Amino acid sequence: MAENNLGKIFNFTTWGESHGKAIGCVVDGVPSQIPLSENDIQKYLDKRRPGQTKYTSQRKESDKINILSGTFNGLTTGHPISLLINNEDQRSKDYSEIKNVFRPGHADYTYWSKYKIRDYRGGGRSSARETAMRVAAGAVARKVLETKINNKFKITGALIQIGSSKIDYKKWNDDFIEKNDFFSPDKDIIIKWEDMINKARKDGSSLGAIIEIRCTNVPVGLGEPVYGKLDADLAKAMMSINAVKGVEIGNGFNSVLETGISNVDEMFIKDGVPQFSSNNNGGILGGISSGQDIILRFCVKPTSSILTKRKTINEDLQETEISTTGRHDPCVGIRAVPVGEAMMATTLADHFLRNI
Amino acid sequence: MAENNLGKIFNFTTWGESHGKAIGCVVDGVPSQIPLSENDIQKYLDKRRPGQTKYTSQRKESDKINILSGTFNGLTTGHPISLLINNEDQRSKDYSEIKNVFRPGHADYTYWSKYKIRDYRGGGRSSARETAMRVAAGAVARKVLETKINNKFKITGALIQIGSSKIDYKKWNDDFIEKNDFFSPDKDIIIKWEDMINKARKDGSSLGAIIEIRCTNVPVGLGEPVYGKLDADLAKAMMSINAVKGVEIGNGFNSVLETGISNVDEMFIKDGVPQFSSNNNGGILGGISSGQDIILRFCVKPTSSILTKRKTINEDLQETEISTTGRHDPCVGIRAVPVGEAMMATTLADHFLRNI
Amino acid sequence: MAENNLGKIFNFTTWGESHGKAIGCVVDGVPSQIPLSENDIQKYLDKRRPGQTKYTSQRKESDKINILSGTFNGLTTGHPISLLINNEDQRSKDYSEIKNVFRPGHADYTYWSKYKIRDYRGGGRSSARETAMRVAAGAVARKVLETKINNKFKITGALIQIGSSKIDYKKWNDDFIEKNDFFSPDKDIIIKWEDMINKARKDGSSLGAIIEIRCTNVPVGLGEPVYGKLDADLAKAMMSINAVKGVEIGNGFNSVLETGISNVDEMFIKDGVPQFSSNNNGGILGGISSGQDIILRFCVKPTSSILTKRKTINEDLQETEISTTGRHDPCVGIRAVPVGEAMMATTLADHFLRNI
Amino acid sequence: MAENNLGKIFNFTTWGESHGKAIGCVVDGVPSQIPLSENDIQKYLDKRRPGQTKYTSQRKESDKINILSGTFNGLTTGHPISLLINNEDQRSKDYSEIKNVFRPGHADYTYWSKYKIRDYRGGGRSSARETAMRVAAGAVARKVLETKINNKFKITGALIQIGSSKIDYKKWNDDFIEKNDFFSPDKDIIIKWEDMINKARKDGSSLGAIIEIRCTNVPVGLGEPVYGKLDADLAKAMMSINAVKGVEIGNGFNSVLETGISNVDEMFIKDGVPQFSSNNNGGILGGISSGQDIILRFCVKPTSSILTKRKTINEDLQETEISTTGRHDPCVGIRAVPVGEAMMATTLADHFLRNI
Repeated sequence: MAENNLGKIFNFTTWGESHGKAIGCVVDGVPSQIPLSENDIQKYLDKRRPGQTKYTSQRKESDKINILSGTFNGLTTGHPISLLINNEDQRSKDYSEIKNVFRPGHADYTYWSKYKIRDYRGGGRSSARETAMRVAAGAVARKVLETKINNKFKITGALIQIGSSKIDYKKWNDDFIEKNDFFSPDKDIIIKWEDMINKARKDGSSLGAIIEIRCTNVPVGLGEPVYGKLDADLAKAMMSINAVKGVEIGNGFNSVLETGISNVDEMFIKDGVPQFSSNNNGGILGGISSGQDIILRFCVKPTSSILTKRKTINEDLQETEISTTGRHDPCVGIRAVPVGEAMMATTLADHFLRNI
Repeated sequence: MAENNLGKIFNFTTWGESHGKAIGCVVDGVPSQIPLSENDIQKYLDKRRPGQTKYTSQRKESDKINILSGTFNGLTTGHPISLLINNEDQRSKDYSEIKNVFRPGHADYTYWSKYKIRDYRGGGRSSARETAMRVAAGAVARKVLETKINNKFKITGALIQIGSSKIDYKKWNDDFIEKNDFFSPDKDIIIKWEDMINKARKDGSSLGAIIEIRCTNVPVGLGEPVYGKLDADLAKAMMSINAVKGVEIGNGFNSVLETGISNVDEMFIKDGVPQFSSNNNGGILGGISSGQDIILRFCVKPTSSILTKRKTINEDLQETEISTTGRHDPCVGIRAVPVGEAMMATTLADHFLRNI
Repeated sequence: MAENNLGKIFNFTTWGESHGKAIGCVVDGVPSQIPLSENDIQKYLDKRRPGQTKYTSQRKESDKINILSGTFNGLTTGHPISLLINNEDQRSKDYSEIKNVFRPGHADYTYWSKYKIRDYRGGGRSSARETAMRVAAGAVARKVLETKINNKFKITGALIQIGSSKIDYKKWNDDFIEKNDFFSPDKDIIIKWEDMINKARKDGSSLGAIIEIRCTNVPVGLGEPVYGKLDADLAKAMMSINAVKGVEIGNGFNSVLETGISNVDEMFIKDGVPQFSSNNNGGILGGISSGQDIILRFCVKPTSSILTKRKTINEDLQETEISTTGRHDPCVGIRAVPVGEAMMATTLADHFLRNI
Repeated sequence: MAENNLGKIFNFTTWGESHGKAIGCVVDGVPSQIPLSENDIQKYLDKRRPGQTKYTSQRKESDKINILSGTFNGLTTGHPISLLINNEDQRSKDYSEIKNVFRPGHADYTYWSKYKIRDYRGGGRSSARETAMRVAAGAVARKVLETKINNKFKITGALIQIGSSKIDYKKWNDDFIEKNDFFSPDKDIIIKWEDMINKARKDGSSLGAIIEIRCTNVPVGLGEPVYGKLDADLAKAMMSINAVKGVEIGNGFNSVLETGISNVDEMFIKDGVPQFSSNNNGGILGGISSGQDIILRFCVKPTSSILTKRKTINEDLQETEISTTGRHDPCVGIRAVPVGEAMMATTLADHFLRNI
């Protein structure tokens, strides 16, 4: 069996296989009277869409979103919003070579073990194509948050590391992020990253990445101790994205190198308002938002689909080899940026709606 | 409001404040006919119990567990198991100095902002005392897994890093873990860690730590794509523990330094059984257990309760200072080891019971 | 907000408005390897479809089901099954007369009060058109139960009362149910019911009805005390159907006229198997199925959409009058028969899958 | 397994066996700053308490409630409220005669079939003793509703029928309900009911009953279509009470005897406020509260524990006989009145908190 729904109040259910007829999601728990058009969703899908740059998959999909229910005269009605994208580029290629072989590093073996049947075309349900509907749900969540909080509320995702090459935080430029194919906030690292990606592709290999998501103008008080903590739900949301292997909040793993003296965010008053001297805790204390920026990072392992031949086995438990010749991202972490933003949006919308 | 229940089938609800009358939990969804006695739970509580070594809090609690329901003649009945520990060491100390001051790095400010009222005695509900009941629930989960899988199923937690001092994996010794106050698997690091803790205490400071949890003999097939993935639920479970700021599976953040060629776990057949050449994925592929050992790490920030004075504010939004003079762990990560084991156990029990 | 998902393991989410582009549902939690085709679903939709007889609504809909995901080579994959029906008969009629008027007995006033916006075309989300997707989800649930239990498992719904005219239980004939427009098990009552419906239509009025659902070959042990009892979940499922105002199990309200002596189902042994001398409890004891037939009844109030003018108010809080001139069922209870069967199927499938 | 939690936002988990050490519940999702003392709960428990009149069970329990967590200085803190009652009257009687025999009409056979083990002492978990904790949770829910809506909000339960003897609605007197042992609103029926109960007891038999719950000053807008409808959740809540076999809202099953013309509640305006000419729908339209009084009825079957010998079987599948000699209610419906009120309160509190 499976579990394809996320969220308690604002919640969404995704469905669809990589090479099936369509993919979609149903977003429920959305308050009424939120302005929502297909354009509001399409603009985020366009950020994630494959086939746009030479650094991502060459699959051709227009990813055109359809709103099938839940709005009336441009406003949400409080009822479930059904979103659908028809799959266009379902190559009728010959799957006979790979249909019963488990691609190492992928979900093929575990899906087969668990379900005894699998849609092998492009990974079926385990494909990252599912993340398009996360982005769609995230777009709805943003509209909720922007309408209910205010239009200063903002989620910003950026790629901060490819392989061992990390951006310089001092050069962080929000405006630049949307202007480059990597969602990098650091202009000076682009050439290096281009070289790295080109080399990885030439080597028949791939690269991992780290994504940072920041969120400003978050109200104080979101998060439900002790098992609905905001950071716990964010960790789950991010870890559920394909190929993610780690999540951290604020100083994260680096907090271990700090001491109790250096790591604590002291408080003071400015203009009558509580302030913090630092944000090592990433905007969350005791599982509840503190009003500071939420800062979160997650890592994406190097794409497992590579041209280089790897040893593996097939459904008959015979040893064999496989190389993945399809259209694949040499660094799937790039397209994970809008997905991470979307998961931040859906998680915050869910917690926000529990607190009003 | 709050959310104090975790799990879908095997689920538990904890309750109780640090200095209230008692703490407890209700474990539901347990199959019938599982052998369960108070001793089965007490042995794990004794691992976590404060006041045992000079490296942890000096609070004196016997933490004696009571089973109030759900068993009959030493077996579970399938009905809710109510567990209760009476608080003994509720010092009737004078709270007047700290009752309206927010301890920096703690949940005081966010709890007050969210709830407008807080039980300031020892942190109330936000205290790590709540984790005693996680350990109790985890003990029940282990009995379920050991009975239903087999007695080779095993969860092992260990402290692998304090501050910047990391164990040597080559010296890992399972047997040694239970024989030292740090749950260290590496005998040779003990003296250094003792010095570090003593120094931190003398400095009125504290230290962070990294915990690793390993799990052997896990059946293939646990985890529900795409929002009930095993790694996603583990990330949530671990991140919900007090002071945890990061979680990673398998190679985790280090996978970013690998390539698609080096990071993929190849497969082969040995004695007719599928095998992996490595375990960079930490036993989980596509959100489903692969049968390999599950390997997970989480970090605990340096204890925020320190003797050194820190700037802060109070409920009247006035600036002030605070130092925490109570009984506190200089490295709260040590006692997080049995808690992390327990969260692994409850999460696995929940997923296991969805798959039989 | 809203809640459009039902079930814990076998669960489904419906979406869509009466006169929107389409209606649909996503069924999740279905085990893999269950045979499922569009025909398996279509046959039940055809039972419920409007425009078939003169005793139901004249809306013309082919209600053709599309499976968009979750199956592969005719078998379920364990992943979410997306079902969709395009709305065909969305009359472009003039809504100006009724768009801001609340039809009495309908959800118009409460939807407007709660959401401040409503899709007035045909009732929008509150329309009984939604029940088509319940029937579709129910068809999937039946395939699960028939495959996992055995093909003797059977759910039979029948209309047992219209107005004050009740069938004669002694004349109950299972085979006849599918052969008449009323789903009546009693051949001799048909002429009377035809007269009653014709008269109600002529009078600009409508009639209520009682539906009985029986279920045979149910395994012993389904139901989770004390808040997931089988009868409690069935009551919720039936009461959630449009226009239903009451639900009863076994002897139901008539059990009040019995005594403790006459009402208890005694037990005995026949061929080594436990047997009951009667089934006053309707196959459920203590919230758990006993292996006897499950017997449940629910009532449907007279259709609120009638030709006769009724006093009401509009969105401007002015008094006005309304008569409903659209295509409506004079006795909506008739088409509730396949809907009740479907809710029985989804509830049983959910409980069955928690117990294997 | 089992499911002992009810509610989505306001939710509670009950635990404990009839003759175990204690019974209890954990109420979660309660907003902070609600005044709550043990007295607030005790007064409702005293209404349900056994051993008070000769018409109910003679079991002696003081049912003294303990609040173990979740309040501070007389106010709720927003954290889980743990409630506990120690069992006092656990008769150390000899169970050897009944321990492996299934009492007909009870959950004994289904519990044994499902769990393969059962606490036979007084019915264990299946005993109506569990309902004491429903009443306790309901008391907390009332405090939430009275504080958040206003103190005119009121829930009134009454016994309206025993056997075939029904009250006269014209004689309904709210004040009288609390002043008689039957919770009857009709003074003139008391003597008849006393005779009926005495006769049933003398005959070694028992009687069924119907309970009506009314709720005034309910806000418009509670209920979440289409699977979290207020009437659907109320039906589930009531049907989950021991021995309940039917639930109806407003006109309920009698609405079948009405026509579309007679049954519709017309609307008009009085003093600028929407009004209804009648309340056949029992205060709920389309699953959402309309602001009218909520009116609900449920029936309780005759107590299955009777002195008269009944045929049954035992765990060894041998035929035998049983009579129940313990302390039992001749009409368990009487004590179901405060339980029904409590379920109304918890369901409304849950829906109310989703809508603010």
